[in-house]
Amino acid sequence: MLPGKASVVEAADRIAPYIHRTPVLTCSTINRMFGGEIFFKCENFQKAGAFKSRGATNAVFQLSDTEIQRGVATHSSGNHAGALALAASRRGIKANIVMPENSSRIKILAVESYGGLITRCKPTLAAREETLKEVISKTGAVEIHPYNDLRIIAGQATAAKEMIEEVNDLDLIMAPVGGGGLLSGTALSARYFGKHIRVIAAEPAGADDAFRSFTSGTFIPSVDPRTIADGLRTSLGSLTFPIIMENVDDIVTVSEEGIIEAMRLIWERMKIIVEPSSAVPLAAIIENKLNISGKRTGIILSGGNVDLENLPFKTTV
Amino acid sequence: MLPGKASVVEAADRIAPYIHRTPVLTCSTINRMFGGEIFFKCENFQKAGAFKSRGATNAVFQLSDTEIQRGVATHSSGNHAGALALAASRRGIKANIVMPENSSRIKILAVESYGGLITRCKPTLAAREETLKEVISKTGAVEIHPYNDLRIIAGQATAAKEMIEEVNDLDLIMAPVGGGGLLSGTALSARYFGKHIRVIAAEPAGADDAFRSFTSGTFIPSVDPRTIADGLRTSLGSLTFPIIMENVDDIVTVSEEGIIEAMRLIWERMKIIVEPSSAVPLAAIIENKLNISGKRTGIILSGGNVDLENLPFKTTV
Repeated sequence: MLPGKASVVEAADRIAPYIHRTPVLTCSTINRMFGGEIFFKCENFQKAGAFKSRGATNAVFQLSDTEIQRGVATHSSGNHAGALALAASRRGIKANIVMPENSSRIKILAVESYGGLITRCKPTLAAREETLKEVISKTGAVEIHPYNDLRIIAGQATAAKEMIEEVNDLDLIMAPVGGGGLLSGTALSARYFGKHIRVIAAEPAGADDAFRSFTSGTFIPSVDPRTIADGLRTSLGSLTFPIIMENVDDIVTVSEEGIIEAMRLIWERMKIIVEPSSAVPLAAIIENKLNISGKRTGIILSGGNVDLENLPFKTTV
Repeated sequence: MLPGKASVVEAADRIAPYIHRTPVLTCSTINRMFGGEIFFKCENFQKAGAFKSRGATNAVFQLSDTEIQRGVATHSSGNHAGALALAASRRGIKANIVMPENSSRIKILAVESYGGLITRCKPTLAAREETLKEVISKTGAVEIHPYNDLRIIAGQATAAKEMIEEVNDLDLIMAPVGGGGLLSGTALSARYFGKHIRVIAAEPAGADDAFRSFTSGTFIPSVDPRTIADGLRTSLGSLTFPIIMENVDDIVTVSEEGIIEAMRLIWERMKIIVEPSSAVPLAAIIENKLNISGKRTGIILSGGNVDLENLPFKTTV
């Protein structure tokens, strides 16, 4: 089961009035360093600061007036929370967001600023699911899962679709992988809209459940993930895993030092703010996990939501 | 004495192969906050990370082969140093850069990475000028002053020229003021290429020599400037001061807190990296030093060179 080409085209049309067609940037210094051309799709400039606005907007605007009259709901400590709250406010409905108590101040402020209704819970998956169930039974809201939802996957696919339309003859596209919504969508768009584009995912070694699931062919959940890339700590979903098995060419893993080095390179050389998860594909290039020499590589920079009071840059990395 | 319209047009053509035509960005949140439309000309994305590449490139490529055969020279602890080194390397000549011993690691690394030849000196204006004199007498290099030079002013003017060509009906343009090269060029381009655009400069209150010179009509040097905006600590020049007196509508001053708040707003909302000097015009809007409600305002973001290991963001500003 996967979103067809028509679903992705429809998603792109549906969300166009509400999202940014983000720019694709290049950096001559970075190209020189790696001997290839890298095209960065800047979803850090997206509404609510991440690609998540694409899927959330597609889901919220695909629902009928009847279906959606009691609002939407999700549990999230990350970018999906803000994206869903913003999409709901654009549709004029309520967004109930279950957030663990240890969510970052920045993420909570973002949800509040978009008018989301926050319910706090203990920071365990069980507490999050239980609290969400209670919120839904009380409000009648529709659950919008952050990635294991075909409408979300079709929405996330529109980022790669735009890049493929804008940049000719890409040899490969890279995306980070957490729950797999962005990666699934990216792989589908590469197939639907590209010509022989290889799709390579990058994942922190400290949260390598997708890598292990992919190489073993068996779903392996994320247990005790340890990575600065806070968007990539989740497990794959029952919908995203088979799409990835079928449509992704490879998954590579990177070190925490590599992620910070890549993030610093993007900040210092491109003068743009990306969050650690965004830097994971470039980290794979830095760490020679794949060779992009002489190739045209597209990288999806997934988001730019960081806490400026808590940055990972230490003296002389 | 000032660069005529033809000089600015020639400068734009001369430097086009070597610099970026930088994007103009907007931010719906910031527009909503201030009730007007603000257009940010992103010179933080410029070659060598600042508008300084425009003037330096114009000066270096305007000199004849004979004039320039022994290279160029300047003293600078800031963005002019890197910009001149890069421009010289593009022309295939040597750049001798006198840098005070207390220059930041980042700025020294930038000059070195562009192949500049660094001579260190004590961190006083007298030592800088004396050392530069020695370097020039030894090498025969041509001095390229960071702002008090008509070729530099014409080069810096091209940033506002591009913005005026791209954004219709600007009501005002804002730029920060340090030595006045950017401000002079901006004011001239507003006059040459715009229609009734007001030009407003912003300056840190802790380095308000341009403000005091402008309001008194008498040149007042910068003595013991105290500001985080390291690009704005210098005095006006004998060429820039009269251009500013004649062509700038107003100069306003801002607090250090305002600069950091504006910088944070740009980083958090626009996801781009700007240095403190770039944030000074927006700080003036935040601090109600002028009212841009209902207006179309252009702001030149002067540069993006910051030390990521030494950022001014503290908990809950």
